Amino acid sequence: MSCSSARLAQQIAFINEIEKLKLVYRRNRTIDQSRFENSAEHSWHLALMAMVLAEHANTPGLDIFTVVKMLLIHDLVEIYAGDTWLYDAAGALVQAEKEAWAAQQLFALLPADQAAEFHQLWEAFVARATPEATFAASLDALQPLLNYLLSGSPGEPGDMLAEQDVLGRKQGIAQGSQTLWELAQDVIAASTARGLYAAGLHGRAPGDVEVVPLR
Amino acid sequence: MSCSSARLAQQIAFINEIEKLKLVYRRNRTIDQSRFENSAEHSWHLALMAMVLAEHANTPGLDIFTVVKMLLIHDLVEIYAGDTWLYDAAGALVQAEKEAWAAQQLFALLPADQAAEFHQLWEAFVARATPEATFAASLDALQPLLNYLLSGSPGEPGDMLAEQDVLGRKQGIAQGSQTLWELAQDVIAASTARGLYAAGLHGRAPGDVEVVPLR
Repeated sequence: MSCSSARLAQQIAFINEIEKLKLVYRRNRTIDQSRFENSAEHSWHLALMAMVLAEHANTPGLDIFTVVKMLLIHDLVEIYAGDTWLYDAAGALVQAEKEAWAAQQLFALLPADQAAEFHQLWEAFVARATPEATFAASLDALQPLLNYLLSGSPGEPGDMLAEQDVLGRKQGIAQGSQTLWELAQDVIAASTARGLYAAGLHGRAPGDVEVVPLR
Repeated sequence: MSCSSARLAQQIAFINEIEKLKLVYRRNRTIDQSRFENSAEHSWHLALMAMVLAEHANTPGLDIFTVVKMLLIHDLVEIYAGDTWLYDAAGALVQAEKEAWAAQQLFALLPADQAAEFHQLWEAFVARATPEATFAASLDALQPLLNYLLSGSPGEPGDMLAEQDVLGRKQGIAQGSQTLWELAQDVIAASTARGLYAAGLHGRAPGDVEVVPLR
């Protein structure tokens, strides 16, 4: 393909490369349980959640377009670095380095000014460096909880995450939105009542949990 | 689940309902050809394209956040109305009525002020009523062309769309961006050269084309 300018060619190379995010699968499932959710549709859902839930941010007057932009790009590094599950603490240590490298590679496809803008947005998100980043991170933590209550299947107590562990891992939601943290606790309690988490502390050790094959 | 307010409960009902867009499948495929692309990940891709390609809009100084919002919500009506293929002219007539009804049903889940905002964005998009809507529509028409060049497989001439028909259906891209229309013509020519469209007018009648089952 010939492009009308080198700049446009760089932009299209980036747009083509990010097709691959549709092939990065997460632990959550679609609500018909037919397949795992991918990071592209997850990012779409988060961007729409930002539009709808903006008023619940702890910090008033957030720049919601910045929140949306962060959420649209926050998982792009997974194209090269893969997705690490929230409850995989050992994986998370290595993951941070891999993602920094991935961001460098991926954003370098863009013209320099846009590469810098995308990199800055992504770094602010990872560092929770701004109120926009903190709120974006709260939405990113809330969405899988909502999805799991709709798409999860009850399991045996020894195979499930412990409710207390989920509460511990998700309490950062309060930093972006106290209202959404209260909602998250309701969602977690409802999920436990449906048999999706083991009550209290009596779940499986998070590091041991494997992806369950789809039927 | 108990929500801290009726307003938040409405917002969460909407966010839960739009999970279903991840299950609306399109004619295009993921680049590994393992499955059809869904409208949620398609919408994510478009929103990112708006961020990257904004400078190529015919109208300078567009409100890009409005373009992004339109693209995030433009396909939501498919949850109730299904997806109609661009080349299915008969289906398109009925589709417009179904989509208007679907928009009414779906946006009514939101609090009234947000329902009105979403409805207005969607109606402007459908009517190509603003420069933002026209540019959003150009991106919506361009993305499947880029995807198809990456994910398509050469076929028999009688089974493929005719290049001239594709050019005819896509020429509206020029209304939002002359630069992207020139790019689109290059992409279509490259696709024909790869055997993805039949050269000239000698393709299959668009109305006869069925979804090809995935291997």
